[in-house]
Amino acid sequence: MQLQVIKIGGNIIDDEAKLSSFLKAFAAVEGNKILVHGGGKIATEIGRKLGIEPNYVNGRRITDAATLDLVTMVYGGLINKRIVAGLQSLGCNAIGLTGADGSVLPAVKRPVKDIDYGFVGDVTSESINCQLIKLFLQYGLVPVFAPLTYDGQGNLLNTNADTIAQEIAKAMALFMPVQLIYCFEKKGVLIDAADDDSVINRITKRDFEELKGKEIITGGMIPKLENAFTAIDKGVEKVIIGHADDLSALVSGNSGTWIL
Amino acid sequence: MQLQVIKIGGNIIDDEAKLSSFLKAFAAVEGNKILVHGGGKIATEIGRKLGIEPNYVNGRRITDAATLDLVTMVYGGLINKRIVAGLQSLGCNAIGLTGADGSVLPAVKRPVKDIDYGFVGDVTSESINCQLIKLFLQYGLVPVFAPLTYDGQGNLLNTNADTIAQEIAKAMALFMPVQLIYCFEKKGVLIDAADDDSVINRITKRDFEELKGKEIITGGMIPKLENAFTAIDKGVEKVIIGHADDLSALVSGNSGTWIL
Repeated sequence: MQLQVIKIGGNIIDDEAKLSSFLKAFAAVEGNKILVHGGGKIATEIGRKLGIEPNYVNGRRITDAATLDLVTMVYGGLINKRIVAGLQSLGCNAIGLTGADGSVLPAVKRPVKDIDYGFVGDVTSESINCQLIKLFLQYGLVPVFAPLTYDGQGNLLNTNADTIAQEIAKAMALFMPVQLIYCFEKKGVLIDAADDDSVINRITKRDFEELKGKEIITGGMIPKLENAFTAIDKGVEKVIIGHADDLSALVSGNSGTWIL
Repeated sequence: MQLQVIKIGGNIIDDEAKLSSFLKAFAAVEGNKILVHGGGKIATEIGRKLGIEPNYVNGRRITDAATLDLVTMVYGGLINKRIVAGLQSLGCNAIGLTGADGSVLPAVKRPVKDIDYGFVGDVTSESINCQLIKLFLQYGLVPVFAPLTYDGQGNLLNTNADTIAQEIAKAMALFMPVQLIYCFEKKGVLIDAADDDSVINRITKRDFEELKGKEIITGGMIPKLENAFTAIDKGVEKVIIGHADDLSALVSGNSGTWIL
């Protein structure tokens, strides 16, 4: 049976009404599914009250020990368990996980080159504990991943949720057909950034190179799409990028941008 | 195979060196095992920084919505995941759980009589999802429970860790022999509270009534022992109360007080 790996970001998590309506749509998705969630502003807000100021270098957040504790609390505790409890109330048998639980997402602490990112983990599909994920799916459990991986030596590591979703999708593609769905605040990849309805329905690698050359696809969308093509190369059937409000249409192939 | 249900409280969790040496001893316990952990002062400290002052009525902490978020973060996130990551680094395949994960610990929000305890849950052994716990044990996973249960309607509930340990032990006793071990800061039930070595090795129900009558057993130890006898009545083979430093001797029956 097909597996849906679905990722939501902070903009949905920070908005109670949006999250609640997303969780209803997620609970209604049939068959095997996995949710990967990001962080959200709430970590920054709670951190500020605790005297932990965000520290960025080149636009990347540095995860020192205090920040790691903060994201462990907020991502692994507050957000993850809120989502799990919400899904359970909708009849979806969710189980919340960080990478340390069952050692499901082993990662390597990012080596220090120019920047010391601190407790940040790089995870690769090869090391993911697929046997455990398959066990959960067989039992009808729905894994809900916080953006935290594990270094094998007692430390959680802060890891980008997009990357976790992509690596899980690639790893699980060895065992079953996988569809990877990125939910964000736009209806898909847009031809005209100012026009929310100018969604590109299908993108091949050639289209992508062309659109990148014409500077129609720019900024943060470039690495997102590059990652999507890597996932396709590694056996993921389809990557879909679309609006979190449209989950059911994204799953059924009636909304968003398909990366093929 | 015998199952060890082991409970640790806040006094160990708050002390990094004690926790680390406890986790080593726990990882070395052979066979099926479950860890249930309590809270600790760290929740109160973090709460204070966030402007959440503890609110007690008749010595019982009231769990309002802000406090529930706090304990979800600290118990379900920070403490639970720290323990899981620590155990994983010792080769113990731990998985962290709240009652909402896999709906493993369904509970009832405590009805308001004289006091409204807020988001506090009463859990009973009958409702525990033993199938899921058995699945984890069969797969070699070691469940690590935070003191949080689930109301079935989207809310986590704050629940005493002693009670969770006892109810899990009773529930699992239907399927396998169970030993329930409470670790605290004394070597067992003491004849003389001032003498740490005056441990009573064995207590039957008759001994308990006599010692209670003579006011040798007093205070918080009375409900602890009453609960222990209830567990025995419900099929738990043995309840052992002893020092967290002595876990290996407690498991093998060479330390602590046995309740029979």
